Parts: sequence; structure tokens; C-alpha cells
Amino acid sequence: MVEWYNKALELAEIVDGRYPVRGTFVWMPYGLKIMRAMIREWDALFQKNGIEEVYFPLLVPIEYAQKNEEWFNGFKDNLYYVSSLREEENLILRSTGEPAMYPIFELWIKQGKLPIRIYQTVSSFRYEGRTTHTMIRDREITYWYEIHTVHKTREECEEEVERHTRMHDYLWREVLCVPPIEVRRPPFDVFPGAEYSIENFTILPDGRLLENGSVNNLGQAYAKKFGLEYVDEKGDRNYCWQVCTGNGARYIVAALLLHGDERGLVLPPRIAPIQVVIVPIYKKRNKDAVIEEARKTDLFLSKNGVKSCVDEREDATAGEKFYLWEIKGVPIRIEIGEEELKSKTLTIFRRDTKMESVVAKREMLRRVSSLLKEEIPNTLHKTADEFYKSKIKYSDEIGKAMKWIKNNGVAKVNWCEEKKCYDDLASLEQGIEPTGTLEDEHRMGHCIACGKKTPKLSLIGRTY
Amino acid sequence: MVEWYNKALELAEIVDGRYPVRGTFVWMPYGLKIMRAMIREWDALFQKNGIEEVYFPLLVPIEYAQKNEEWFNGFKDNLYYVSSLREEENLILRSTGEPAMYPIFELWIKQGKLPIRIYQTVSSFRYEGRTTHTMIRDREITYWYEIHTVHKTREECEEEVERHTRMHDYLWREVLCVPPIEVRRPPFDVFPGAEYSIENFTILPDGRLLENGSVNNLGQAYAKKFGLEYVDEKGDRNYCWQVCTGNGARYIVAALLLHGDERGLVLPPRIAPIQVVIVPIYKKRNKDAVIEEARKTDLFLSKNGVKSCVDEREDATAGEKFYLWEIKGVPIRIEIGEEELKSKTLTIFRRDTKMESVVAKREMLRRVSSLLKEEIPNTLHKTADEFYKSKIKYSDEIGKAMKWIKNNGVAKVNWCEEKKCYDDLASLEQGIEPTGTLEDEHRMGHCIACGKKTPKLSLIGRTY
Repeated sequence: MVEWYNKALELAEIVDGRYPVRGTFVWMPYGLKIMRAMIREWDALFQKNGIEEVYFPLLVPIEYAQKNEEWFNGFKDNLYYVSSLREEENLILRSTGEPAMYPIFELWIKQGKLPIRIYQTVSSFRYEGRTTHTMIRDREITYWYEIHTVHKTREECEEEVERHTRMHDYLWREVLCVPPIEVRRPPFDVFPGAEYSIENFTILPDGRLLENGSVNNLGQAYAKKFGLEYVDEKGDRNYCWQVCTGNGARYIVAALLLHGDERGLVLPPRIAPIQVVIVPIYKKRNKDAVIEEARKTDLFLSKNGVKSCVDEREDATAGEKFYLWEIKGVPIRIEIGEEELKSKTLTIFRRDTKMESVVAKREMLRRVSSLLKEEIPNTLHKTADEFYKSKIKYSDEIGKAMKWIKNNGVAKVNWCEEKKCYDDLASLEQGIEPTGTLEDEHRMGHCIACGKKTPKLSLIGRTY
Repeated sequence: MVEWYNKALELAEIVDGRYPVRGTFVWMPYGLKIMRAMIREWDALFQKNGIEEVYFPLLVPIEYAQKNEEWFNGFKDNLYYVSSLREEENLILRSTGEPAMYPIFELWIKQGKLPIRIYQTVSSFRYEGRTTHTMIRDREITYWYEIHTVHKTREECEEEVERHTRMHDYLWREVLCVPPIEVRRPPFDVFPGAEYSIENFTILPDGRLLENGSVNNLGQAYAKKFGLEYVDEKGDRNYCWQVCTGNGARYIVAALLLHGDERGLVLPPRIAPIQVVIVPIYKKRNKDAVIEEARKTDLFLSKNGVKSCVDEREDATAGEKFYLWEIKGVPIRIEIGEEELKSKTLTIFRRDTKMESVVAKREMLRRVSSLLKEEIPNTLHKTADEFYKSKIKYSDEIGKAMKWIKNNGVAKVNWCEEKKCYDDLASLEQGIEPTGTLEDEHRMGHCIACGKKTPKLSLIGRTY
């Protein structure tokens, strides 16, 4: 998988991995267009939900970072420290948003701005000792968003968690065509200080689990550290309640890896920089007519909101063009040649199923829209669903579970939500971990660690 | 001016200046929407001109920065150095793009990718010893774009400079409604290593000059330092030719300061997050009808591509609403009340001229479009033009010029383009500097420093 991934990122020109600082890379134009399309999706979604974009600086005073000693002790070995020649600076590079944001939230609360509901899309920095993987584990985590909200009551906080979970679901299902796997992390293994977390996981083609976006109910833990208090109607001071959520390029990782095939990428239409590529196929004598028809088709599609383009390159054969755009994962290819001109048709190739069909010109827009909005997303979903089913297997015995994990993928097991059992499962083997409780599935059985009867399920598998 | 500026930034909620790291600030939602609108404008413009967006990391190896010792010596006292606890890091934070990009360009050129034409929008970091001003002189320069291009010939390079200059012009005139002042910087006072620079200046309300976007013809200077060579048809190795351009939030500074008035901001329509605010004015008995009409109007405008909203707040009077949206610089306010309902009209208030007029409902869209696309931009242009005229005065004698600069604004003087004369003018008084030669204006006269006859003109004035 790693080989396919690195090769696909290179051949499709998603990134250039040759930048010499470990754990960092260059976003190439095509890759960045995919990322930007994803960012536009979350921008629209968050703002529709009343969550406003802000920008906090990347330089953070160490003393802010130290206000929550749990946070600081958890992060300090992985921080980047910043200095200048002229002045003593006590700065770190932004690692997560809390230390930069929460002292300013204190001022906003005093100005009567509760609830606070904001997000920021920005690079985050973590010195990673472990092996880095492009977009999976980076030292500069580019285009990372974090939502932070502050509320007066626990109830508002819970509603916000619910809303964030729905937003994640929307991005997974509607935009990325990947089924979300939601897990409730146990309270003893959550974001420092949080009450609980809802974590999304994806299963990658090699059968390993990747954490992919979490919603953290911070309760009052951070509010107490940062002095986030409000005065209620009775004049009493109360600590606020908080939620934070974050994710970034790992969305793209999941979409690239789960939908890709032996020919290269297969992009979900909503994040495809080019949704339709038109390849004119001509001889000298009909060149002008074919190219004119291709351009007209392009213009017509563009006017109707489809991201299309014509590949008019003279120094590439039709075959070379097919090859390139298949690697790049363009959802639909339209071929126009002599035959199509004569019969007023177009040949449409679907990247997902690799099927070609001939469509009457007057039917084109209806057909293309249906493919982009319904048929291709449905197929991508179905394939990913089936892949997940083939990788996840229920096990009621630890030996069987471990065998499945080593040879195939992820085991689904009953567990009783006790810390001891979690620790037992987590210590079975380096790199194999339980996820915590599945949100949307229950099945009566016996905890695989202690044998206690329980309907709760956890996945367990190798993790990134 | 500083007082107006800081007050306007705060009251209109553009930024929060209370972030405790000097030279940095928080972008608030409304301010960031203005900045994002500006970024969308340059994204569209650059990509239409075939310049593609990329992302290079913020962490840059010091050895890369040292490849051009002129660059390094110029910047080293103003760099931020980055380290981690676990590993010796020889990293700096991105200050300008060259050190990060050009070693990778070397690889791209070997892959046959000439010409390279890319840009990046990203934070840049400079330790500033001088007084910092929000968006004018920051230590974290947020949303800074840089275009970098690499070419085979000097001619291609010149064409690119020309194209960049036209793009700057477009952004100034069409988007920001500010007349550009283009100056050719003398070769002895340009970006380290450049052959020449075209610099844009704006004159702020206090009569001081602000550098606002430059196009640098780098010639072959950087190509020689970074080994950017290509092999021509004859098999000979040649150094490449390069151009770089950059600007960022200073665009916004100019627009805010030049168009604003005693009531607050006056936003150019294309960067206004809200172009039309609808204020319903009702009593209890007609509340429902008025609000319904306001919502319909909003929906109708939104459907027609106008960024509109209704201010339905119950806890604010109409007067308070007027006051807020005037501070925030919303170009058009529509008032709907009993009178308007009865007569099927709307009352339209223009923020720029502060004039109200009554318009028939069926005329509204035509009227609003004309205001946003023509009339308001024209007025903003005209006002800025007149302001510039009032601030710039031709002088043929150094004493008169200095008096004008001190009491009014910027002097326009003849100069012969000799280094000695430039230095003489630059050393007249701390903080007063010549700009270099005006691109679009000539006038025969005598160099104000040496008396030699010349048609060349320079501005001279206090600078930021």
C-alpha cells in the first residue's frame, strides 16, 4: 500500500516529497486543488452551521502553553521552539489551538460574546519522532482545521458535539464517499483534559486503522485552567463548557487510498479539480471540426457548473492522454472523434467502473450530472463499504482475533469498557490497539478480555 | 490617522489586537471575510493567467537560506530560528519564498518543467525591530502571496514582469478602487539580487507613503546562486531568468484607510462580505409583513448573486443597526417599513455618498447592480484620486519640497536617476525617502539634487 500511495502521489502530482525537511512536503498544483476543494466544502458547511472562521497567529507564548500543564506535559517533547537573534523570545510554533485561543476567549467572554463558535484552518507543527508519512503523520500538518466552541451549559455542549458529529458524517458520506466509522473513545484515552471524544476511523487498504477526525467534549477542564468564566443571571460565576474538533489532509488520504485502483486515483466528484476531461481524437483532415466540437462541449459543460477541460496537447497521443487522466483520477472522460461527430454522440468513460458508453449529444448534460451527483458517488460508497466488510471480522476469542488482524485486517470484539480490559487489549502487541466503543453498532457477547457480558463492541487492529 | 485606523479595526471587528505576541494579531470573522474575498480575487486572477497555486513548507533549512549570501545577510537579523528538544534542527521560519522554493525548482527544471509559474499564499515571518502596525508591519505577515516564475530567456522574463504589473493594476483599480502609483526602483535599492523592481505605493491619509506590492525582475542572480540551469537545443547549459512578486494584507490597509470616513469603513463592493444589509423597520402591528418583505428581498438579491442579509435582531433599534453597518462599511443599506410596503418601494442608502433614495421594487435589482458594479466603485475611485491630487505637489526646489512633505504630504520632483542624487535625497531627513522613478508620468525639469535636465520624476515623502 505504501508503495502504491507514494507512487500515486508522485505520478498524479499531488505532492512533491523531495522537500528536505523530514515530515514536510510540497503541495503541487493538482493536489492543492483537491485540498482546496475539500476546504471549500468544510468552509461552506461550518459557516452554514454558524461557525465563523478566524485566524490566530502561529507564534504562541510558552506561558500560554503552560496554563494547562496536562496539555504542556503531553506536548512539550513534540513542540518546536522559536527564537530570534535580537530579543529573548519565549515562543512555540502552534501545535494545537487551545494555548493561543483560550486566553483571548477569556476577553471575548467578558465582552458578552458567548457562545463562541469559531474555526481556523492553518498549519500545525509537531516534532514527530516516529516514521513520518505524507499527509498521515507530518511535522508540518498543513491545512488543519480546528473548531473551538465555548458554552454556558453542559447541554449546549452536548448539542454541539452532536452537531459536529453530523458535520463529520456529511463530509465523509456526501463529499468523500467513504463510510464513517465512529467510535467513542474511553475517558482514560482521550485528548488531554477531555471528558470524552468521538473519533472517526478509516481502514486503509493495508488493513490498518487511521484516526481521522475527532470531536472532543472538553467539559470544564480547559475552562478551569484558562479561567473561562461567565456571570449568570444570579450574579454567580460559572466555568464554561467547551468542544473542540479537528481534521485536515487525512480526509484526502482516505479518499485517495480507498477509491484508488491499479491505474491510479479515482477522485470523488466533489473534490475533483477536473470532473470531465474531453479528449479530441482526430486525423489531420478532421482536426478542426473535432477540436471545435470538443471546445463547444467544454464550454457547454462549464456553463452548467461542471468543472471540465479539453486536453488539446499536440505532443501526446490519445492513449497517453487517457493514461494521464486515469492516473489523476478524473471521474469522467469524454471522447470526441469522427464517429461521434457523424452520429451526434459522445463516448463517455467512467473512471470508477472503467466502463464506456455512447450517449446522444442532447442527453449529455443529464448523463454527466447523474454520473457526478449519483452514480459515481454510489459506486464509490458501495466499493468502500464492501472493502470494509471484507476487512472487519467479528471475533469472540483473542487468538482468532489476533490471527485475523495479522493476516487480514481489523477485528470486531465485545468489550466491557473497563480500563483494565482496554489496557490488556492495548498491550497484546506493539502497534495493535483497540479503538473504543463503536457508536452505531451493538451485539450481545462476552468481553474478549474479561468475559463479562456486554453489548458494546470495539474494533481492534494495527494503527497508524 | 493611526487612531482612526486602530479604532476602525476594533469597532468594525476586523482584528483583535490584544494577542500578546508583538507584531501579531487575531483576524476576526468579519475582517477575515474581507481578506478571503481579496484572496479569491487574486486566486482567480493568477489562475486565469496560468499561474498555479502550490504550498511550500514554513520550515526552511538554514543551509538553503545561505545559498544566496546576499539574501541571508540581508535577512539574518530578522529571521526566526526553530528548534526542537529531541533533534538538532537547523531550521528557520519562512521569511520569503526563495530559499524554500528554488532548490526544488532545480529538480523541476531537470524534469523539463520550464517555464515554472507558481504562487503561494502563506504566512511569512520577520522579526521587526521597528514599531509594528497591524497589517502594515507585522512579525507574522499573514496571507502573504508570492508569485515566482522561472524562464529560459530574458524576453520571457520581461513579458512576465509586464503581466504581473497589469495584474497588480487590475487588483488596484477593479477590486480595491484605489489608483495605483507605479514606480521603478533604482537598481541600487531593490530586493537583494534583483535587476530592477516595479513598486506600487499608496499614500495613506496622514500623507505617508506605503510600499504596496512589488514586481522584481531577478535576472539571473538567484539562478546562479541556486544552480537553476537548463540545457538548450545546442546542448549548452544556461542560467534561467526569474521574476517574483508579492503582497498581502496591505491591499486591505489601503482600501480601508483611503475609503473610510468619520462614520467608519467604506468597503469596495468586491471585497465586502455583506454588500447589502436590509433593515426592517416595523411596529408591533406590521412586524410580520415587514419582516416577510425583508426576507423576500434578501432571497431575491442572494439568488441574483448579491451578498445580502437581513438584520433581524430584536434587541437593537433601527438606529443602532444603521450605526453598526455604517461602521462596518456595508456598501448599501435597504430600509423596508410601512411606507415602502404601501408604495411598493425601497429606501436605498449608499454608504459612500451617504445619500438616500427611494426606488420602485421592480427597479431594485437593476439599481443595486449598477451601484455595486459602477456607481460606488466610480465614486471611491474619484475620491481617492482627488485625495492623491491634494497630497502630491510638484516642487522644483528642495526647501519647498521639504516644507510640503512636513505640512501636507508627498512631493513630486525631477531626478536624474543617479545613485548620488538618490542618496542625497534619502539622507535629507530620517524617515523621508524618494520612491524612484514614476512609471506613468514624465515632465521636463531639473534634477532637484544635482540640477541636471531630466524628464524623470520621483515622489519623495515620509514612509512607513
